[in-house]
Amino acid sequence: MIVGKLIGSTADWMCSASGESSVVMSSRLRLARNLAGHAFPTWADKNERQKVYDEVIPAVRSLQALREPLVIDGMDNFSMIEKQLLVEQHLVSREHAAKGPGSGVAISGDRGVSILVNEEDHLRIQAFSAGFDLVSVWEVVAAVDDALEAGMAFAYSSDFGYLTACPTNVGTGMRASAMLHLPGLVLGEQINQIVQAVGKLGLAVRGLYGEGTEALGNLFQISNQMTLGESEAEIMARLGKVIRQIIEHEQNARASLLERKSRMVADNVGRAYGILTNTYSIASKEALNLLSVIRLGIELEMVPEEIRKTVDELMVWTQPAHLQAKEERKLSSEDRDGLRADLIRERLKGLGKPDAGKVVEPPDDPAGRGKQSKKDE
Amino acid sequence: MIVGKLIGSTADWMCSASGESSVVMSSRLRLARNLAGHAFPTWADKNERQKVYDEVIPAVRSLQALREPLVIDGMDNFSMIEKQLLVEQHLVSREHAAKGPGSGVAISGDRGVSILVNEEDHLRIQAFSAGFDLVSVWEVVAAVDDALEAGMAFAYSSDFGYLTACPTNVGTGMRASAMLHLPGLVLGEQINQIVQAVGKLGLAVRGLYGEGTEALGNLFQISNQMTLGESEAEIMARLGKVIRQIIEHEQNARASLLERKSRMVADNVGRAYGILTNTYSIASKEALNLLSVIRLGIELEMVPEEIRKTVDELMVWTQPAHLQAKEERKLSSEDRDGLRADLIRERLKGLGKPDAGKVVEPPDDPAGRGKQSKKDE
Repeated sequence: MIVGKLIGSTADWMCSASGESSVVMSSRLRLARNLAGHAFPTWADKNERQKVYDEVIPAVRSLQALREPLVIDGMDNFSMIEKQLLVEQHLVSREHAAKGPGSGVAISGDRGVSILVNEEDHLRIQAFSAGFDLVSVWEVVAAVDDALEAGMAFAYSSDFGYLTACPTNVGTGMRASAMLHLPGLVLGEQINQIVQAVGKLGLAVRGLYGEGTEALGNLFQISNQMTLGESEAEIMARLGKVIRQIIEHEQNARASLLERKSRMVADNVGRAYGILTNTYSIASKEALNLLSVIRLGIELEMVPEEIRKTVDELMVWTQPAHLQAKEERKLSSEDRDGLRADLIRERLKGLGKPDAGKVVEPPDDPAGRGKQSKKDE
Repeated sequence: MIVGKLIGSTADWMCSASGESSVVMSSRLRLARNLAGHAFPTWADKNERQKVYDEVIPAVRSLQALREPLVIDGMDNFSMIEKQLLVEQHLVSREHAAKGPGSGVAISGDRGVSILVNEEDHLRIQAFSAGFDLVSVWEVVAAVDDALEAGMAFAYSSDFGYLTACPTNVGTGMRASAMLHLPGLVLGEQINQIVQAVGKLGLAVRGLYGEGTEALGNLFQISNQMTLGESEAEIMARLGKVIRQIIEHEQNARASLLERKSRMVADNVGRAYGILTNTYSIASKEALNLLSVIRLGIELEMVPEEIRKTVDELMVWTQPAHLQAKEERKLSSEDRDGLRADLIRERLKGLGKPDAGKVVEPPDDPAGRGKQSKKDE
């Protein structure tokens, strides 16, 4: 039922802005909340979970942010393909997609807000925005939190703050994160150093689909680890500061690649474009990785800007469930690879081609040769 | 001095014919001959080698086939780059390129005949033709052999036939070979089987640059092993028969790929084209392998015929010495890879693009879907 809405277009926050802020694909913030007087979902029996569900859903329905929702429903009412689509669009967690009766999800019409009911906690309230904008996602989530708290009692301790099923969320219950596109640091082989440094600052670095997943497409999710002992504002300030530093490192890495290894980068970008526009069979991971490289090409002005929106959309649409939803049937992995290739070729056709001519020095550049001979003298 | 002549154009036999015979890139035949009363080159001292050289060269000069030669000269008069160019064009062996005073080479104006003086034997007479044509190369070589033998005494035994430095050449002194392009058998994973079968028939299978070299670009040289106990006609007939069988196997393999794995082949061809037309740095081996796949694409009508001559030329021109000769200077491997990419992009630009649409079945082909559902019932 909601398939058409999910695959008809991408949400605004899934397609990134250009310019400086484009290193950050999107920002996300979520709060974990639980109803006082009820066992956490994992410990609650079916009846108790249903009670929580029945109390929460009407409150969610009346929220301003969900006035024209994309959907508000129990997890048992979604088909397998719908659940996978929701995961691929980061609107529900993989764990939540596996839930049945007594668990549910509410998603705003613009897919900027999603509220999970009876995931690990009774309530997970999350908001998304394009680019680097923790403030606006915080405002959206805080408004939902305030509105809900006005009508129900959240489990709260004056010593610890909000109580949550997992101790790592106790306190603010807040996890703020940004999805960073870091091809420069990956190509420049500095990424491991950055990941380690970020870890030492008490922040977590994860792959595209969150905890325990691979960093596909040079995409890294950076989030706060601690929820206790710091205010929401302090968490966001600290995370923001680190992210701004990573952005700077990424931009330095790109500038350095352009200056010292322009031909290598142009080759990477060119090959990615060449493969994507001519393949007849491509796996999901390879597609994502190559699209990521084209995205770098756009930032480095080797590929025209006009291709950006399509590249961002393809990063979403080439995922397995998206392809199957489009075809309205279950596909073998081989068929998916074929359809994925057809979709990418079709969508990229006629859009701007790479032209690295202005950034790549010819190997037989007479100026370069002159410099070399001077050095040799 | 001869660089311009070597890189200005490719010889006719280096660019293959289209159609059925295109599985065979070129045919080559050589005779090993030695002057009676002189030690073989390896055992001869400098003086004796020079004597042989001085006797042979005037005779070679007077040959009809060498009336307007590309070059007739001693190996000590070639620069390093010229020697490498001659090797890359298969006009002299790698071993011969390393020779100095007392060794020489004579090459006809059309590069269809080359005569090596004091290689392993006093004389190696060889001729080349495009496609599969052992008869015409035999006629050319036999005419040169007859003309030379009319003026000098060749080492000959009535028991064994022509005597040669290495016993494997005694008898006819003949080695006939064909350069086969076998991408179908390689992609279809049947090549090892064929190579083994050919070996059992007393024929040798070698890589692009002869004995002990890799099979780059899906190119395999098939030649006779035996020179003793069979006449020249018998050797050619036996070799010809086997080559015709391999051609048939290759064509069956291609038909089978097209029928059962058209999408896989289209993907290979498309990616090869995409990479070659967008790369900014490519090694010699990768270039040759990808050009080979495009050549397969032409044969399978996935790539327009108009691109064929350029692909064949690039197989020659992208070799290391050819690039350096064009630039008139020694290049680092990195610079060569860059220039090779620039050359390939430039030459392929504007030529026909792959279009596998007519041979690749869509994964969502309704007919295929119908068949599938029937099976499921």
